[in-house]
Amino acid sequence: MAKPWATLGVDLHLEPAGSGGLRRGLTDALREAVRTGRLAPGTRLPSTRSLAADLGIARNTVAETYADLVAEGWLTARQGSGTRVAELAATPPSGRGAGPRHREPDRPTYSLLPGAPDLAAFPRTEWLRAARRALAAAPYDALGYGDPRGRPELRTALAGYLARVRGVRTDPERVLITSGFAHALRIAGTLLGARGVRTVAVESYGVGAYWGLLQQAGLATPALPYDELGTDTRALGGQDAVMLTPAHQFPMGMPLHPDRRAAVVDWSRRTGGLVLEDDYDGEFRYDRQPVGALQGLDPDRVIYFGTASKSLAPGLRLGWMVLPPALAEEAASAKGGVDTVGVLEQLTLAEFITSGAYDRHVRSSRLRYRRRRDALAAAVSARAPEVTVTGIAAGLHAVLRLPTGLEQPVIQAATWQGLALHGLAGYRHEGAVAEPLDALVVGYATPPDSAWAGALEALCRVLP
Amino acid sequence: MAKPWATLGVDLHLEPAGSGGLRRGLTDALREAVRTGRLAPGTRLPSTRSLAADLGIARNTVAETYADLVAEGWLTARQGSGTRVAELAATPPSGRGAGPRHREPDRPTYSLLPGAPDLAAFPRTEWLRAARRALAAAPYDALGYGDPRGRPELRTALAGYLARVRGVRTDPERVLITSGFAHALRIAGTLLGARGVRTVAVESYGVGAYWGLLQQAGLATPALPYDELGTDTRALGGQDAVMLTPAHQFPMGMPLHPDRRAAVVDWSRRTGGLVLEDDYDGEFRYDRQPVGALQGLDPDRVIYFGTASKSLAPGLRLGWMVLPPALAEEAASAKGGVDTVGVLEQLTLAEFITSGAYDRHVRSSRLRYRRRRDALAAAVSARAPEVTVTGIAAGLHAVLRLPTGLEQPVIQAATWQGLALHGLAGYRHEGAVAEPLDALVVGYATPPDSAWAGALEALCRVLP
Repeated sequence: MAKPWATLGVDLHLEPAGSGGLRRGLTDALREAVRTGRLAPGTRLPSTRSLAADLGIARNTVAETYADLVAEGWLTARQGSGTRVAELAATPPSGRGAGPRHREPDRPTYSLLPGAPDLAAFPRTEWLRAARRALAAAPYDALGYGDPRGRPELRTALAGYLARVRGVRTDPERVLITSGFAHALRIAGTLLGARGVRTVAVESYGVGAYWGLLQQAGLATPALPYDELGTDTRALGGQDAVMLTPAHQFPMGMPLHPDRRAAVVDWSRRTGGLVLEDDYDGEFRYDRQPVGALQGLDPDRVIYFGTASKSLAPGLRLGWMVLPPALAEEAASAKGGVDTVGVLEQLTLAEFITSGAYDRHVRSSRLRYRRRRDALAAAVSARAPEVTVTGIAAGLHAVLRLPTGLEQPVIQAATWQGLALHGLAGYRHEGAVAEPLDALVVGYATPPDSAWAGALEALCRVLP
Repeated sequence: MAKPWATLGVDLHLEPAGSGGLRRGLTDALREAVRTGRLAPGTRLPSTRSLAADLGIARNTVAETYADLVAEGWLTARQGSGTRVAELAATPPSGRGAGPRHREPDRPTYSLLPGAPDLAAFPRTEWLRAARRALAAAPYDALGYGDPRGRPELRTALAGYLARVRGVRTDPERVLITSGFAHALRIAGTLLGARGVRTVAVESYGVGAYWGLLQQAGLATPALPYDELGTDTRALGGQDAVMLTPAHQFPMGMPLHPDRRAAVVDWSRRTGGLVLEDDYDGEFRYDRQPVGALQGLDPDRVIYFGTASKSLAPGLRLGWMVLPPALAEEAASAKGGVDTVGVLEQLTLAEFITSGAYDRHVRSSRLRYRRRRDALAAAVSARAPEVTVTGIAAGLHAVLRLPTGLEQPVIQAATWQGLALHGLAGYRHEGAVAEPLDALVVGYATPPDSAWAGALEALCRVLP
């Protein structure tokens, strides 16, 4: 699956059968990669032997190419240090056919950033088929200004789906369609603020942008403690609300411990506190049945959030909330006087769910991601014994625990290799009550299949 | 085109060839219409002669039906007052087969409300075709979290289209995609507020909900004077900004007078004031070339707003802003960190525009709406000589000037007839500097073709 060039961490656009012959083609491709920054200064190139083997060409051709580029100043060769990309001056050297051009923005070759599914696997044909059926069936007035809650077809389909797959207890009247999780959270912020909520406890690890959205609504977001069993909800007290990722802590990756799950429900019933349940990837569990939604235990106090961003694609901009009866109407007016989410996408998703295509897509994605997860765990265990892979029972990402002090150097090395990678530090609440950890948050669902092996290889190369 | 029943102002679901014969079918249909409230109490029914002629059945059948229903208490017949729907008690009379049931929510049979195109004419096949092409051509990473400005394909297509059709001067970098006009106006409100704008002058006639959105952003919205030449922009002075509908004043319907157009640009250059140009239906002009956008005269000071809601359908939730260079970046961040508008709809609209399907659809819509406008003007002139039709050179609606004091009674009569209709009063700024007028704002694009003749007939019947 991996292209031979994957070992360089870049896609060289090499056309070996090009007009100028192999050597010319390889020279141009390498020069271009350096020029555009895809091969960063200081990057060590593979040995002539291994690159030649990868490409299935004569070792001599590679050696001559390297020599040409050293002569032109693109590469440097030093005894004992191998061949590296030269530390270029501000103006790149003007070799033949490669004058100074506008440098392209740095775009990594591989991404293992968490938060997105494999977009290349978006079921385009099935989606279009559903769109055709949905549009054929839609009454014409569906195309007008709509109910702010969203289309009834989609709310009905989701109410059924969420009950069946996530144990959510609702009816379509309490489902609100949004353009993704951030939109839903903005609505929740407005809603909570209007009800006099001042404090929403959050987890010690999570997404800062989401805490920011709540803060923009005037809410304080103090962190709950985090220990080896995960988020410690027993610390809940006088807060008005809490936001959690119970099925699969983001980014740490484990479900909320059963005792602490019970503690949330108990707190909520005792104090009247509201629970914001972010069920971003609840469908993706590999080792046993998915953990049901917390909402099922306490539908009168839990605001449930889901999204098509992980199961299908963020670009659809489709998310949903399930609201306690007492909040449903307020949430709809907080969203606005008319619907703000495109009707055709809503009708298409409704048809996609109802026809079973959604289930099929989730199943096949789960299988593929599970294979990637297994490959990741196996590769790390074989090649980086100091690294521990955690949080892999579910979801689209894993947490790789590193030896102390290595998070930043590994991220930096990955950047040099053209691999986009996030460390755990960026997901830590500034008031986190938790042992600091060095770790990577690896989104193994992110690359397309064609780049997965290359991305995994690039990752393994930067691990200690 | 019109069903005979259209003269009753209701769709009676009559099946004349039904099992019980004509009389039974007609009786059931009328009873049902009264029971569900589609025929409101007090409504006068057509004479037996005219209804029989409409239906192509014997006059006697109609007379017997009326008599049956009078006997059952559904209708009343009084000498000189004709046959009317009875003023029913709280519990409808229990006639044969028509026990008391839950009364359906009042839903008018016809709508001439302004603000929407004919949704039944949405080009479904062409749209799906564009969706298929767009999705086939989209790189997979288009499906991820996107640039808050919107997809480059759509921004590019719009920049070209707006330059060609509306004389807008822009490049794609300054186009921002939104989920419709209200969303765009919210963004503008945030933007203006952050720049220290405190006052946005608005027109004496317009949409209160839009003034409300600006007020929610903390902005004052005083009204400009309005006279026989339209909005008087010469009154602009110390305001920080002004919001206008220059191509086709909403709802009054005339373009901004050339002198007053010049006065806006002059004011803006002199004071640095910003202009919010709402170009909601600029493509629909019938009697000569469309009036170009004001933005073309002053691209550094005009924020231009457009939407697919009038040209295609509100349900798409697609709108756009063209921003002065100095505001483009701020507007994108006011929209959010990532795009909130569905990518597939954006790519589809881009393809729809680029392929020429948008132009074709606008052309055919223009032709159809023009025919309706002509029919409206002719019918009103023939049947209601006291009413003047104005604002009909462009757009999807007309203003029908009524004799003083008749606006409310006509609206009320329309409600009784099952015709949804708006008066001008609801569009008047509470601080309007303008002669009060009795008028109707008639959205002649709103009904589907099949209901147009019926809607027009219902309108004519309630006019003085």
